[in-house]
Amino acid sequence: MSIEIAIGSNIRKSPYFAATLRAGVKCFSVYNHTYIPAHFGDPEAEYRRLTTGVAIWDVAAQRQVELVGPDAARLAQYLTPRNLDGTRVGQGRYVPLCDHDGYLINDPVLLKLSEDRFWLSVADSDIHLWAEAVARERGWQVRVFEPDVSPLALQGPKAVEVTTALFGDWVRDLRYFWFRETSLDGIPLVLARSGWSKQGGYELYLTDGSRGNELWEKVMAAGRVHGIGPGAPNDLERLESGLISYGSDMRRQVVPADPFEMGLGGLVDLAGSHDFIGREALARVAARGPARRRVGFLLEGAPAAAGHPVAVTRDGAELGVLSDMAYSRRFERTIGVGLVRSELADDALGLTAELPSGPHPVRVTALPFRL
Amino acid sequence: MSIEIAIGSNIRKSPYFAATLRAGVKCFSVYNHTYIPAHFGDPEAEYRRLTTGVAIWDVAAQRQVELVGPDAARLAQYLTPRNLDGTRVGQGRYVPLCDHDGYLINDPVLLKLSEDRFWLSVADSDIHLWAEAVARERGWQVRVFEPDVSPLALQGPKAVEVTTALFGDWVRDLRYFWFRETSLDGIPLVLARSGWSKQGGYELYLTDGSRGNELWEKVMAAGRVHGIGPGAPNDLERLESGLISYGSDMRRQVVPADPFEMGLGGLVDLAGSHDFIGREALARVAARGPARRRVGFLLEGAPAAAGHPVAVTRDGAELGVLSDMAYSRRFERTIGVGLVRSELADDALGLTAELPSGPHPVRVTALPFRL
Repeated sequence: MSIEIAIGSNIRKSPYFAATLRAGVKCFSVYNHTYIPAHFGDPEAEYRRLTTGVAIWDVAAQRQVELVGPDAARLAQYLTPRNLDGTRVGQGRYVPLCDHDGYLINDPVLLKLSEDRFWLSVADSDIHLWAEAVARERGWQVRVFEPDVSPLALQGPKAVEVTTALFGDWVRDLRYFWFRETSLDGIPLVLARSGWSKQGGYELYLTDGSRGNELWEKVMAAGRVHGIGPGAPNDLERLESGLISYGSDMRRQVVPADPFEMGLGGLVDLAGSHDFIGREALARVAARGPARRRVGFLLEGAPAAAGHPVAVTRDGAELGVLSDMAYSRRFERTIGVGLVRSELADDALGLTAELPSGPHPVRVTALPFRL
Repeated sequence: MSIEIAIGSNIRKSPYFAATLRAGVKCFSVYNHTYIPAHFGDPEAEYRRLTTGVAIWDVAAQRQVELVGPDAARLAQYLTPRNLDGTRVGQGRYVPLCDHDGYLINDPVLLKLSEDRFWLSVADSDIHLWAEAVARERGWQVRVFEPDVSPLALQGPKAVEVTTALFGDWVRDLRYFWFRETSLDGIPLVLARSGWSKQGGYELYLTDGSRGNELWEKVMAAGRVHGIGPGAPNDLERLESGLISYGSDMRRQVVPADPFEMGLGGLVDLAGSHDFIGREALARVAARGPARRRVGFLLEGAPAAAGHPVAVTRDGAELGVLSDMAYSRRFERTIGVGLVRSELADDALGLTAELPSGPHPVRVTALPFRL
């Protein structure tokens, strides 16, 4: 199935949009009302660059929601079950966000820019509306908005070489999820050690959208000697690595899931006294145990990917969901991720994935995959 | 520029997705995290069907946000500056939604299903998160969620014939924006006289997503004698008709605009006593007058559409924005819509649109176009 994407005023173009066109982007998706490259026509080369070299990704669609003002820290803490005590300026933290019923509505990285200024680097849902409604209905002194910030990712084992060449040796000592405000030949940005892969790398949070083209070209020039090439958030690598994809693996309106179900229970601070949205609901889940658990799936052969979540059944009863799947060369089999009822998570026989091509046997396995 | 769209688990497929593939969809966009057809490869035939015949549109991406419970009416009223007094069960109303600063965040149709149950048929932003945050932070007794409801539109002057053939003569007497719960050969739906065009028509709000295919085929069969064919929300017709497109013409994070600027001031009830989000901010706007006004633009020739909002300038100063544009056969010229500073809205000479192809002279005109 090859269908065109509409280019129109209702979807935003990233500051790197023109650069990705020049680089030969072949396929886009839409994320936070913004075009995001999906691939450049050679999935194997893109996977290889990510896992053995270095790739440049336009991830400007990972929008930032800025919280700034006297109550910014209070709001940040209220939005997430994770205890933020001890978070330092210059530090990022993965912060699941829940609604009042304890269901996940996003899973951003929080960047603490100063004691009263934070960014939420969000997955695909309108957290600026959520955070704004909460702040204003509480009458808190905090401004919530989307600043002019557009991340560009360098991912892969050689990303460190390229980033060092551009910014200096200090980037080698940057700890995971930590960041620093800096610039590149006058282009202002925030440099973080982060990215949506397990291959290592950095994200350059450009803070002047008019300079996307320049930044892209400077990175490409520095990366040439390391064989840099374009890529995009890679569904196969993320499946192999067991990374969560909000929107694919769960979405409030489609596949509601709580942090315990998603394996994020360790980030829910019910022992502490701090208040957060969903606390009561999550205390109930913690007391009774989660209804489902996040698992890996193994499928024989190489059935066509569903392209949407499908039911996992046994004897016709729906017992889980297979969110996403792909054939893995690394594991030499088809893998997937999803949720199954907790009592099946360790030992489930006779399960079937209801693929569009027909029922297909699946085996449950723990994440991360150890094959 | 022809680029593929990624089909993946993170974007929802409508219940009519398979039917639109069979009907030969060539281009999709994404709206409310859902694929929505953009065209079927023959824009002229699609425009002609819409304006002289009847078209079938998959608009399931126009998701519903249901408000249900003792405080549902209270929440509905608090969410919009429009006074909802006197709204009857079975009646729909166009309800701009604003944030606490008075900026538009969506412009849905509200359907009153009963005294304590409403749907917001939303444009492209996560109003389920907004409405839920407001309701829960206020402690109101109302459940907010996205129900299994997927609109299918019949639009065009012959839509009434097709809809009558399917449902009976009563649909002729249905007033604009009114609706009735009904069914078609056992397929449950809500039938409304509405749709995002000025060509007349109906929307069938399917309430069982497993039956999209059946509903599509029944509509196609009934419409065959009237030359029905597939189409999609039509950017050219909406420009000619002056319809607002949230996401294109304004979006909170991209082109913030208040209801007065968008020509919706008549829907803002500052005279009444009811409280609503943004009331104080909108009272200030009403007192000083809006900074900008929504206008039509006329451009000589047929320059390539920008595909994104562009600045409108004079002598280098930015005085407005051209949101969207297209060549109109009906008016035999290129038209656009956007915002300009209020003092220019009636008489602006020497304005320039900063198109990607280069600066291009534009003339301001009132909406709706009278050419």
